[in-house]
Amino acid sequence: MLRTHTCGELRLEHVNTDVILTGWVQTIRDKGGVLWIDLRDRYGITQLILDEGVANTTAIPSADLFSVARSLGREYVVKATGTVIERKSKNPNIQTGDIEIRLSNLEILNPAKLPPFLIEDETDGGDDLRMKYRYLDLRRNSVRKNLELRHKMAQQTRTYMDGQGFIEVETPVLIKSTPEGARDFVVPSRMNPGEFYALPQSPQTFKQLLMVSGFDRYYQIVKCFRDEDLRADRQPEFTQIDCEMSFIEQEDILNMFEGLVRHLFKTVKGIDMAEVPRMTYADAMRFYGSDKPDTRFGMRFVELKGTFDTVDLTSGKNFAVFDSAELVVGINAKGCAGYTRKQVDELTEWVKRPQIGAKGLIYVRYNEDGSLKSSVDKFYSEEELKHWVARFKSEGENFEPGDLMLIISGETGKARKQLNELRLEMGSRLGLRKADEFKALWVLDFPLLEWGEEEGRWFAMHHPFTSPKPEDIALIDTDPGQVRANAYDMVINGTEVGGGSIRIFQRDLQARMFDLLGFSPEEAKAQFGFLMDAFEFGAPPHGGIAFGFDRLCSIFGGADSIRDFIAFPKNNSGRDVMIDSPSTIADKQLDELKIKTVV
Amino acid sequence: MLRTHTCGELRLEHVNTDVILTGWVQTIRDKGGVLWIDLRDRYGITQLILDEGVANTTAIPSADLFSVARSLGREYVVKATGTVIERKSKNPNIQTGDIEIRLSNLEILNPAKLPPFLIEDETDGGDDLRMKYRYLDLRRNSVRKNLELRHKMAQQTRTYMDGQGFIEVETPVLIKSTPEGARDFVVPSRMNPGEFYALPQSPQTFKQLLMVSGFDRYYQIVKCFRDEDLRADRQPEFTQIDCEMSFIEQEDILNMFEGLVRHLFKTVKGIDMAEVPRMTYADAMRFYGSDKPDTRFGMRFVELKGTFDTVDLTSGKNFAVFDSAELVVGINAKGCAGYTRKQVDELTEWVKRPQIGAKGLIYVRYNEDGSLKSSVDKFYSEEELKHWVARFKSEGENFEPGDLMLIISGETGKARKQLNELRLEMGSRLGLRKADEFKALWVLDFPLLEWGEEEGRWFAMHHPFTSPKPEDIALIDTDPGQVRANAYDMVINGTEVGGGSIRIFQRDLQARMFDLLGFSPEEAKAQFGFLMDAFEFGAPPHGGIAFGFDRLCSIFGGADSIRDFIAFPKNNSGRDVMIDSPSTIADKQLDELKIKTVV
Repeated sequence: MLRTHTCGELRLEHVNTDVILTGWVQTIRDKGGVLWIDLRDRYGITQLILDEGVANTTAIPSADLFSVARSLGREYVVKATGTVIERKSKNPNIQTGDIEIRLSNLEILNPAKLPPFLIEDETDGGDDLRMKYRYLDLRRNSVRKNLELRHKMAQQTRTYMDGQGFIEVETPVLIKSTPEGARDFVVPSRMNPGEFYALPQSPQTFKQLLMVSGFDRYYQIVKCFRDEDLRADRQPEFTQIDCEMSFIEQEDILNMFEGLVRHLFKTVKGIDMAEVPRMTYADAMRFYGSDKPDTRFGMRFVELKGTFDTVDLTSGKNFAVFDSAELVVGINAKGCAGYTRKQVDELTEWVKRPQIGAKGLIYVRYNEDGSLKSSVDKFYSEEELKHWVARFKSEGENFEPGDLMLIISGETGKARKQLNELRLEMGSRLGLRKADEFKALWVLDFPLLEWGEEEGRWFAMHHPFTSPKPEDIALIDTDPGQVRANAYDMVINGTEVGGGSIRIFQRDLQARMFDLLGFSPEEAKAQFGFLMDAFEFGAPPHGGIAFGFDRLCSIFGGADSIRDFIAFPKNNSGRDVMIDSPSTIADKQLDELKIKTVV
Repeated sequence: MLRTHTCGELRLEHVNTDVILTGWVQTIRDKGGVLWIDLRDRYGITQLILDEGVANTTAIPSADLFSVARSLGREYVVKATGTVIERKSKNPNIQTGDIEIRLSNLEILNPAKLPPFLIEDETDGGDDLRMKYRYLDLRRNSVRKNLELRHKMAQQTRTYMDGQGFIEVETPVLIKSTPEGARDFVVPSRMNPGEFYALPQSPQTFKQLLMVSGFDRYYQIVKCFRDEDLRADRQPEFTQIDCEMSFIEQEDILNMFEGLVRHLFKTVKGIDMAEVPRMTYADAMRFYGSDKPDTRFGMRFVELKGTFDTVDLTSGKNFAVFDSAELVVGINAKGCAGYTRKQVDELTEWVKRPQIGAKGLIYVRYNEDGSLKSSVDKFYSEEELKHWVARFKSEGENFEPGDLMLIISGETGKARKQLNELRLEMGSRLGLRKADEFKALWVLDFPLLEWGEEEGRWFAMHHPFTSPKPEDIALIDTDPGQVRANAYDMVINGTEVGGGSIRIFQRDLQARMFDLLGFSPEEAKAQFGFLMDAFEFGAPPHGGIAFGFDRLCSIFGGADSIRDFIAFPKNNSGRDVMIDSPSTIADKQLDELKIKTVV
C-alpha cells in the first residue's frame, strides 16, 4: 500500500509514529508561516501541518516542501509523509481531532481541476451537475454513507437468509418477453435473427421452477427491469430481495419475513421493532383509504353515513350532498380547532386541486368552550352534529374540544383516496410522520383480480401466479371481483416495501387463471407452457415475497428519494447523463442484429 | 410449515416422535404386505413404511392408507404423517438410515407425471432433455450440490472481501455501447428512440469511477454479458467477482487476491493451499508455451536450438528441418520409452491434426539399456543426441533411461502452441492432471499490446485502461510491442480464473493509449470522455482484478463444464430451450421501440 494508515485511523496513542497517508486535499489554510492541510479519504479527515518556525524531527521543513504544499488545490491527490504529533487545539468534531501530522514530505500523486461544486455535505451543485459529475458527488460524506448503508443492508439480509437455510441462486437476465405486467426491455438476438430476449421484471417464474426443483428455500438480491415512463423516483433498473419457500402456508411467510425486517432494524439501525401488526386490505381501505397506510399516526377514517338513520332531524333539513353520496367519511385533525377560516379555506383548495380532485371539504370545529361550529350549520343543528361526535367516539377516534373534523363525501373509491391524501398532509403538518420513527404493517387478503375498464377484462392484482383463498375459489365463476388472494404486502411508514403471495401450484387452476385473464389456451401455452408443464411433474405448495431493495434502503436512510441510494442512477428520461447513455450505435451493430431503427 | 422435520433430519434420538414430512417420492417397494417409500427433499431421504402385519401406534393401517400409498408414482409430492421407529436393517449410506417412519396418514399434495428421465445421480436423459426439463435436472443430487457449492463460494467471497474492508457497490446494467472489446448486447430505448443501451461486458469504467470517488476498496459479484459466438462452455451471460483498490501497487493486489483464493480453498474445500508461485508471461511461454500453464505437473519445455553450435557434428550431416526452424523445443515424457512404434505414430498423427497443426513430431527414446534411439538417427549420432540429453539436464528436466523425448520445431509461436497441446495431452495420459489436486499460479508482466494483423493496428492485450510498466513507458513510441503491462492473471490447473491490472490514472497517458489503439481524439472523447474527465478531478492510483465466478466454481467442483454450476444455462445457440427464449415479440413492442427486424 502507498499508505501506512488511513485518514480516519490515527489517535493520541500514535504520537511520534512515522506515517504515510494518502488522500484528497479537502482544505488548505496558510497563516503566518504555518500551513494546515485537511487530508480526506473514505475513512475520515486528518490534519497535516507545516510550520516554518518549528524544528521538524530532522530539520526545518525545506523551502521545496513549502512550495509543493502551497501549489496544492482542492481535491489534489497526495501522499503525505510525516510524524504524528499531539494537536494544540483539539477538534472534537472529527475522530482524528487529537492529533495532526508534522510533514516531512509531500508528493502530488495527481493534481485536480477545481470541481464544479464543493465536495461538502451541503453541496452547491444542482441535481443536473451532481448527476453529470456523479463520481464527484459520490465523494460527499452523505452520499457515500448511503451506499455504505446499502452494503450493510445487503450483508445483513444475506446473514439472515443464510441463517434460515435459504440458498442464493442466480437466475438469468436474458429471458423471454411476456405480455402480462409492465413493459419489457428487450434485447435483439444476433444468433437468432428476428428474435429477442427480455430483461426480467422479476425472476418470478424461475423462482417457482426452483421450488419445483426442490430447492425449498431460495433468495436472491437481484437486478430487475421495467420499461415504464419514469415518474419521480422510479428507475428503469432496480434491485429486489427476491424470496421463495416450499411446503409453507401464508403464516410461515409472514413470520419469516417479519423476522428479516426486524433483523435489519436491529442490526443496521439498532432498533428493536415491535411485532408487525396485520390488517386486511378491506380494513386498510376503510380506515385509511389506502392499501399502504402510514401507521406512524392514527387519525383513522370514521364513516358517517347512516348516522342520522335513527335520528329525527330536528332541523328538518337534509344536506343533499351527503344524502346522495355513496360515502361520507371524516378524520379528526387533533388540536386543530384553532385553524383560522383562511387556513380551512386553504385546506379546501388543497383537496380541490386536480391531483386530489375533491369537490369540497366539510369541517366541524369543536371549540374549547364545548360548542360545535361547522360549515354545514345550516343543515345540521349542534345537537345533530353531536351524533357525529358520538360516531367518532364509538370508532375509537375521540373528537374533543380543540379538535377539527374534516369530512369528504362522494363515490367510495374516490372519497377514500382523497381523504387519504388529506390525512397524510395533516399528518405531515402536525409533525406526526417522523423520519426516525418506523412503523411496519402487514396488509393481507388483497383482491385476486381487478377490472380493467378500458380493456374490458380482469387483471391480476398481484400477478397471474397468485393463488385465490381456498374458501373463495367457488366465487371465481360467479363473482371474480370478490375473490380474495393469498397475497400480502409489507408497508413501512406508508410505503410498500415488499409484497408477495402463495402461488398456484396446480396446472388446472393455473390454466383457469390464464383463461380468466383473457389468454387463449394457445397463448397461455406459448408464454407459460414450461411453468404449467412443470406443475405436472410434482410441484410442491409454495409462496414467496419480494422486497424493493432501493426503497428499503432509502427508508432506513430516512430519505424520500431512492436515487441517492443507487451509485449511478438514471434521470427521468432514463438517461445516464454522466456516460451519456443511451446512445446511437454503429450501423455494423444494427446490421449484425438484423434490425433497423425507424425514427 | 406443512412439515415438522425435513427428510434429512431424523435420527435414532427421534424414535417415538410423531412427525410430518413432505417431499417427493423417490422409490416405492411393495412386498409381502409391506410397503416402503423413499421420500426425498433437498435435505435427504427418509424411508416410510406401511406394514399390514404390524400394529400401528393407534391401529392397523387402514385399507384407505394402503390404497393411497399404492396409488403413488415416482415424483409425487406427498405429506406423510407418522412415528419415527428404529429400522431393523440399517442403511449406512444415508444419514437417516437408522430410522424409518411408520405411517399413520399420507396425503398427496400434487401428483406427478412420469418424468422424462430418472431423477438419480446417473441420469438417463441426454443433454437436450436435461436442458428442456432443467427443473427436473435440478432435482438431481449432483446438480443441486453444484449450486450449493456456488452459494458457499459466493458467501465465502463476501466474508473475505467484507473482512478486508471492501464495499459491495451495484453498478448499472443498462450502460453504453463501446467499440473496444467483444460484441455488446444492446437494448433499444423507447424513451430515446433510435438510441440503445448496452449490457456491460464488465463494470470496468464504473469501478474506476468509484476509485475516483474515493471508495478505495470496491467489489461486486456481478452478471456480465458478451454477444460472442458460443464455443462449448461459454455463456452469453456470466458472473464475475469484480474488484478494485486504490493507493496500491501490483504487489498489494497479488497479496490481497491470493488471500481470497486461499480463503476459498480453506473454507470451501478444507485445503491449505501453498503460497501462489509467480511466473512472468515470458517464462510461461518459454517453459509451457502457454500463458496459463497447468502446473500440477512439470514436463517443462527445453529449447534445443544451438545445442550443436560448439559441437563438431561427427556425422557430418545436418537436419535441415531443425536448422531452418526458428524454434526446436522438446519435453520429457517421463517413463514413456516403452511406447511402441504404433503409439508414437499415433501421437504424431495427433499433433498433425488440423486443430494442432504440427508438421511432425521427432522423438528420442532413452532405452533402459542406456542406448538412445531417435527418429532422426540418420542425421544425428547417438553421441550427438547426448548433447540434447545434457541440455535437458541443465534445464532441470532430467532425461533418463526409460524416458521419451518429444520434439517439435517451427515458427516460435506455433511450435510453442503445438507443444503446449502435446504436453497437456501427455499429462492427461500419464494421469498427472488430477481433479482433486489444485495448483495456482500468478502470471505477470503481460505485453501491453498485441498487433492485429488483419486490422493493421495495435490492440490492448488486457484492455485500454491497463497501465504500462513505468520503466517501459519510453518504449511506447519506439517499440510498442515490447512494452510490458502491469497486468496479471491467476491460473489454476491450467485455467485462467482471474485477471487484472494496475490502471492508468492520468489523463494524458490514457489519451496516448487511445491514440495508440487507433481512436481519433473525437472518438476517444465520445466514448470515454467521462473517464478522462474524471481523471482530471483527482484520480488516485488504482488497480483491480476480476475472477470468472462460473469457472471458479466449476474448478472447485472438479468439473470441466461451467453449465452445471449455472441454474438455468443457455445452449450453444444462446437459447434457453426450457422457456424457449429468445422469441419473436409483438409488433406493438417493435413499434413502441421504433425498430424493425430485417430478417
